[in-house]
Amino acid sequence: MKNIYIIGVGLIGGSLALSIKKANPNATIFGVDHSDEHLNQAIKLHLIDKKANLVDIKNADLVIVAIPVDKTVKLLPQLLDLININTLVIDVGSTKMDICKVVEQHPNRRNFLATHPIAGTEFSGPKAAISNLFEGKTNIICEVEKTTFKLQEKALKLFQDIGMRIRYMNPEAHDQHIAYVSHLSHISSFMLGKTVIEKAKNERDIFDMAGSGFESTVRLAKSSPNMWAPIFKQNKSNVIETLNEYINNLTTFKTLMEKDNFEAIKTAMESTNYIKQILKGI
Amino acid sequence: MKNIYIIGVGLIGGSLALSIKKANPNATIFGVDHSDEHLNQAIKLHLIDKKANLVDIKNADLVIVAIPVDKTVKLLPQLLDLININTLVIDVGSTKMDICKVVEQHPNRRNFLATHPIAGTEFSGPKAAISNLFEGKTNIICEVEKTTFKLQEKALKLFQDIGMRIRYMNPEAHDQHIAYVSHLSHISSFMLGKTVIEKAKNERDIFDMAGSGFESTVRLAKSSPNMWAPIFKQNKSNVIETLNEYINNLTTFKTLMEKDNFEAIKTAMESTNYIKQILKGI
Repeated sequence: MKNIYIIGVGLIGGSLALSIKKANPNATIFGVDHSDEHLNQAIKLHLIDKKANLVDIKNADLVIVAIPVDKTVKLLPQLLDLININTLVIDVGSTKMDICKVVEQHPNRRNFLATHPIAGTEFSGPKAAISNLFEGKTNIICEVEKTTFKLQEKALKLFQDIGMRIRYMNPEAHDQHIAYVSHLSHISSFMLGKTVIEKAKNERDIFDMAGSGFESTVRLAKSSPNMWAPIFKQNKSNVIETLNEYINNLTTFKTLMEKDNFEAIKTAMESTNYIKQILKGI
Repeated sequence: MKNIYIIGVGLIGGSLALSIKKANPNATIFGVDHSDEHLNQAIKLHLIDKKANLVDIKNADLVIVAIPVDKTVKLLPQLLDLININTLVIDVGSTKMDICKVVEQHPNRRNFLATHPIAGTEFSGPKAAISNLFEGKTNIICEVEKTTFKLQEKALKLFQDIGMRIRYMNPEAHDQHIAYVSHLSHISSFMLGKTVIEKAKNERDIFDMAGSGFESTVRLAKSSPNMWAPIFKQNKSNVIETLNEYINNLTTFKTLMEKDNFEAIKTAMESTNYIKQILKGI
């Protein structure tokens, strides 16, 4: 794959550009972005070789769509109109149902592969791009059977080259599970940040008393609202379900406290310590 | 200070022992613990020099109480009965009101200093002890005026030696603020872990789909229930207040989602991004 187009040269697009270039030094990485400033930064940071426009997509061997998921559902059908018969188009969005649905009936559906690399940080934009972000991480591929076999092979080779392991899942299962382990974490973190900011009018008190525990729990509240609001919108019903369960668990905890049942609280915490076993694998 | 007694040779007690020994190589560090296994581990790990018993406290220049806060309120008055007139007794608990209250009328109150070093990890026990845990961290001192001036000076020298900066606060303000930046974070993390564990009966799905975001948000759910349940109990009214506000914020977020008001959600997230400015200081 010689001509690689990255649409959206932010944290994920930029990091993918770095990893792909490292694995394929002879490829040319083109950047497409609605922000010319981001494209200039991406060139300066050596994430991409050249700027490009959407019309150039016809020359692409590979197109990676790394933009907010609301933008992806709008752009993806247009992209599939523009490509040539050998182009592989990959999206990397955090939701998969709406994205797979919007191209379901597209004549070039078989040129598209829906993926979700489970990797990232709380930062965004070209400057947030990191080398080796995907090394050892999982990439979830949805509806693999709907992609031409030859392009599947190319995609798998690409992910293997940048050190990712693959897991196959249907879009419904993806969106349901990811609501728990990713989308809910972001909301819990954002609302923790909101609660503390609202209370602690005196900033100095937060600053002085906050330790590494707070810092790690609230880290995701630094994330980009432009990226996350559309994710919550697309995964609305699953996210609401997780929020109901989370709020119920918090309310039960509070009720146990009000009733001075600290033995039950200890028991609940002890069972949850089981997360240690689960996290060992991450 | 030659004879230093650490009561509770776990994460905090053990780490303090390491830092104090480094700053005072000629001191002898004695360990007191209800678990003989922990004492043996502490010797093996070079956290302490010798095992000791409570009755030996009469020889102490410094006693550090680093046990769960429910145990501290029971033991502290007894300790103040046992010490000599020059002994400094310090506690390091995550609550300060109950602890200060229990010794309020003690004839040796002036030998005691209430502190809360804002440092730690999610692990516990002697094996969790770390060198330099307190370097650059904040220590909150409560009711400093109630400690003999000479012993205040010794304590400040000690904290300076191990690299801590000091902030003074009354126990009421401490317990109220710490509920937001520490106690609530732990509950939000524990309940996140609980929600995900309950849902994801199929562990493999959590394991494969959980990334670094989930890992950091749920990290505190690994913490010791024996340490944390008593903290929530002692700080009950403040913690319940933070939980009410947190649950309200989560419920508002959910209602906005149900009403498809994703603009308001984006706005709330944007304001909360302000946490970046606050965390820069940590």
